[in-house]
Amino acid sequence: MRHRRVLEAAPMEFSELIKTATVEDVLLWRPGLPAVRGTLCITSHHLLLSSRPGGELELWLLIRNVDAVEKRVSGSSGTITLRCKDLKVLQLEIPGMEECLNIASSIEALSSVDSVMMMYPFFHRPPSLRLQQGWHLCPPERHFQRVAAQTSQWRLSTVNSDFSACPSYPAAVIVPAAVGDDTVARAARFRQGGRFPVLSYFHPRNGTALLRSSQPLTGPNRRRSREDEQLLGTILDQGERGFVIDTRSAQAAKQARMSGGGTEPKASYPQWRRLHRALERGRALQDSFGRLVEACSEPAPSTERWLGRLDSSRWLSHVKAALSTACLAAQCLDREGCTVLVHGAEGTDTTLLVTALAQLILDPGCRTLEGFQELLEREWIQAGHPFQLRCARSASSHARGKQEAPVFLLFLDCVWQLSRQFPLSLEFGEQLLLTLFDNAYASAYGTFLCNNEKERSLCKVKESTHSLWAWLNQPEEKHKYLNPLYSHNPLVIWPSVEPQSIQLWQGFFLRWIRPSQHLDEAWLEMRRLVQGDSSWLPESAGKRLSQPLPEPPAGTER
Amino acid sequence: MRHRRVLEAAPMEFSELIKTATVEDVLLWRPGLPAVRGTLCITSHHLLLSSRPGGELELWLLIRNVDAVEKRVSGSSGTITLRCKDLKVLQLEIPGMEECLNIASSIEALSSVDSVMMMYPFFHRPPSLRLQQGWHLCPPERHFQRVAAQTSQWRLSTVNSDFSACPSYPAAVIVPAAVGDDTVARAARFRQGGRFPVLSYFHPRNGTALLRSSQPLTGPNRRRSREDEQLLGTILDQGERGFVIDTRSAQAAKQARMSGGGTEPKASYPQWRRLHRALERGRALQDSFGRLVEACSEPAPSTERWLGRLDSSRWLSHVKAALSTACLAAQCLDREGCTVLVHGAEGTDTTLLVTALAQLILDPGCRTLEGFQELLEREWIQAGHPFQLRCARSASSHARGKQEAPVFLLFLDCVWQLSRQFPLSLEFGEQLLLTLFDNAYASAYGTFLCNNEKERSLCKVKESTHSLWAWLNQPEEKHKYLNPLYSHNPLVIWPSVEPQSIQLWQGFFLRWIRPSQHLDEAWLEMRRLVQGDSSWLPESAGKRLSQPLPEPPAGTER
Repeated sequence: MRHRRVLEAAPMEFSELIKTATVEDVLLWRPGLPAVRGTLCITSHHLLLSSRPGGELELWLLIRNVDAVEKRVSGSSGTITLRCKDLKVLQLEIPGMEECLNIASSIEALSSVDSVMMMYPFFHRPPSLRLQQGWHLCPPERHFQRVAAQTSQWRLSTVNSDFSACPSYPAAVIVPAAVGDDTVARAARFRQGGRFPVLSYFHPRNGTALLRSSQPLTGPNRRRSREDEQLLGTILDQGERGFVIDTRSAQAAKQARMSGGGTEPKASYPQWRRLHRALERGRALQDSFGRLVEACSEPAPSTERWLGRLDSSRWLSHVKAALSTACLAAQCLDREGCTVLVHGAEGTDTTLLVTALAQLILDPGCRTLEGFQELLEREWIQAGHPFQLRCARSASSHARGKQEAPVFLLFLDCVWQLSRQFPLSLEFGEQLLLTLFDNAYASAYGTFLCNNEKERSLCKVKESTHSLWAWLNQPEEKHKYLNPLYSHNPLVIWPSVEPQSIQLWQGFFLRWIRPSQHLDEAWLEMRRLVQGDSSWLPESAGKRLSQPLPEPPAGTER
Repeated sequence: MRHRRVLEAAPMEFSELIKTATVEDVLLWRPGLPAVRGTLCITSHHLLLSSRPGGELELWLLIRNVDAVEKRVSGSSGTITLRCKDLKVLQLEIPGMEECLNIASSIEALSSVDSVMMMYPFFHRPPSLRLQQGWHLCPPERHFQRVAAQTSQWRLSTVNSDFSACPSYPAAVIVPAAVGDDTVARAARFRQGGRFPVLSYFHPRNGTALLRSSQPLTGPNRRRSREDEQLLGTILDQGERGFVIDTRSAQAAKQARMSGGGTEPKASYPQWRRLHRALERGRALQDSFGRLVEACSEPAPSTERWLGRLDSSRWLSHVKAALSTACLAAQCLDREGCTVLVHGAEGTDTTLLVTALAQLILDPGCRTLEGFQELLEREWIQAGHPFQLRCARSASSHARGKQEAPVFLLFLDCVWQLSRQFPLSLEFGEQLLLTLFDNAYASAYGTFLCNNEKERSLCKVKESTHSLWAWLNQPEEKHKYLNPLYSHNPLVIWPSVEPQSIQLWQGFFLRWIRPSQHLDEAWLEMRRLVQGDSSWLPESAGKRLSQPLPEPPAGTER
């Protein structure tokens, strides 16, 4: 059986953390499923529960997925509630007070190990894959080749080959052909974290470009940088105008000057017009996520109370704001024919949210399964979204750091809204978005580890872990993520961003609360229709209402 | 051309109402569509607009569909805004002040004609149908045959053959076999409007029954009726219990005694246990509908404002309450094995809402296209839901009567919620629900005319108008309404009624506001897949964004 493979002896570091490795007679409760009694095992990376007769595996949980552990001891037994990062909630009734406390503290300790190289991806060795497969899905060179086929205005720069110009950028980035690496390196010093303006997307229809960066370090003394001005200046022809979309309010951008940041002043960047579109991030977004998850799990509220809590969570406002800003960027490019630079403060969160969504709206290539994976590689992973910091904790952890924020989830939700409004235009479906969320927060693969390429290189992630893309792109996995209704749509897809059109992503927020089995069946039925294979019609109606849990695949878990 | 057929000379009654029959150079505005200039014609029943070069028909509107007419005159021209019962909004810019006022008052007069036999169904003669076709879709005899195949406890009574026992019941109804027509006739006098308890649904799985009636006329003096007690008494065996589900609050039911109504007192009906589930109806429901439609059409509100307005419309609460009460009735039957009597006050509104929904939940037969039409015939049309009174005006009329209420719309919305939660289990799709709404409010067919069978018989509806079912069941029409994913599900479908699971029916409420073209395409694509016919793939991508209006079919309109 598959779970035997991970029952290897725990390395010293872990064995110290595991105070009790096995408890018999544990009762497992999951919402909507019958309770199961079995043997609980704690290994270095997993929590397993096998039901007793026959030893069938009932639960297979990556301990990294545990967001919060709550324990309640009464008499000679105790109950542990595990709130997982993927929003699943499990309850374990454990005989023996000491065992209960030991198990709880083992899970707490193992789920908080913060050394990247001790994490499960460094130990996970699926037999169907070889290391290094899938790690070169989208090297910057490949993206550049596509741009270079259209225009000679841009070049691939290796100014950051040793990550010295910008520690959160990849080794190669695309910059204007007209500026040399010296100028770029000096411009980098004028941008927070060295994130100088780089090409995010070249719009072939009219030759406009989407750029991203971090804020300029203007500071209270209104510093300028000739090199930064030169870099942005060469992008626009004489008389041409560009737009800077600042993802902060005008006031927040102004206040940022006090702490050394700021905006591009009109006087020094005469061809650029600034637009402010405030997108919340950081703690505000994290709290919004937490409030929505809490509201979703309230049993039997009144409609009034539910709509009140949905509103006060403000999550749908964030979705609307992100989609609107992405539409604005896409409109500037496609309708106004203007080049656009997007940045907020650090340029690693709402900036990437906007540039990635704008590309999905504009570019049919990004809407294929392969193109979407490339987009994620390029605009989130290589672009330096700090996944390790942002996704360390999910909605229910009370020990929140200052760095957590579900920006990536907000992106996935916006993609889901697009897929709902344009059901034929994305080659992938909801299942891919759910899998991406799960893997960003707790994974057997190295793809979302660390905060940027520099850290990944130091930790030898690409040499020592498997790529999630390699796993997903295996034919027997891949078909789960395809949209059976997909048909190539070469047009720009303009979503409706009115609040009346924005819906709660039930498939994510209610995933473990309401049964989605009938919706899943509809998806399967469509796939069956597409494959023209009528041989595996639902066998019996009885099966419909009581499907057994599938054996957990090596990559994901339920 | 098809519209020529209705340009017959108007009968005297109409010609007096039409002050100006034709105006040239009228500009038509519809949300989301380009403006069109053309010739406007007013006929007895239709408003037509033909664009000038070539005379292509651009608009074909049944004047009965007009809910409210707003006019604004300035200088030598005027603008008429037509708010339709199906929530469509049209604007006509008319040269000539007098012409504008004439057109507006003609539309107002023609849309308010209240003589049933002057309505369009009495004039509409589609060549593909013959009169009387489709009128015998579901005679009470047919329903009774099915019950009689299972049990001999019920019989078909003709006590109401001349509509004297109950003017709002059909000529034949199903009553307990053990009571004679004399008893039934006397029991009728103890129920409001004569609506004595009749069989609504027999549950073959365990032989329990769903009954409906109106409130007993207990009054302030706590009157009793031996015959009513006998009728309800014979249904239950010794020691067996039944449930009365009263769709009013306990307080409202008590207050009803002051005006002659009331409830079944425990002392006189010892085997029946009463449950109160307050469902709003009448003005409260009509206002809720109006508020939601207004909120939906607000351009660009904030998410907060939208959710606030959605909440304060209370529409989703009504949906949740209706579904919950139907689930309660279905549970009493299927899980508790108890017979259930449903009534509110008159027994023609929320009562039918609950009995019809409960059958859809319990009985797979009602979930086919044919079965659903039969359910509507049986539980809404023949059961005496007063369509003419309830659907006289829609959401935007300011001249609201006291009798309007969108109870039938609430039913359709609940069916839509079921179809969304169980995407494989209903043989029909959203398009059928929309068509039913449109025809209940303004139709070329006689099916939803009048308030009950007695009135239909007096007006000779079945002899002089075509049946909507005959039209819908023609093969070239029928396929539009089928759910491509349908597969027979023999089980009870228990919907989730948590407010988190109830969604706004965007396909209805946003039908004319947000483009649904991409969702319609997905539906078409699924149908294509099912038919295995790959020959009519979308021809070109350009077509996707600018599909021309299809020529209006004789039955429905856009």
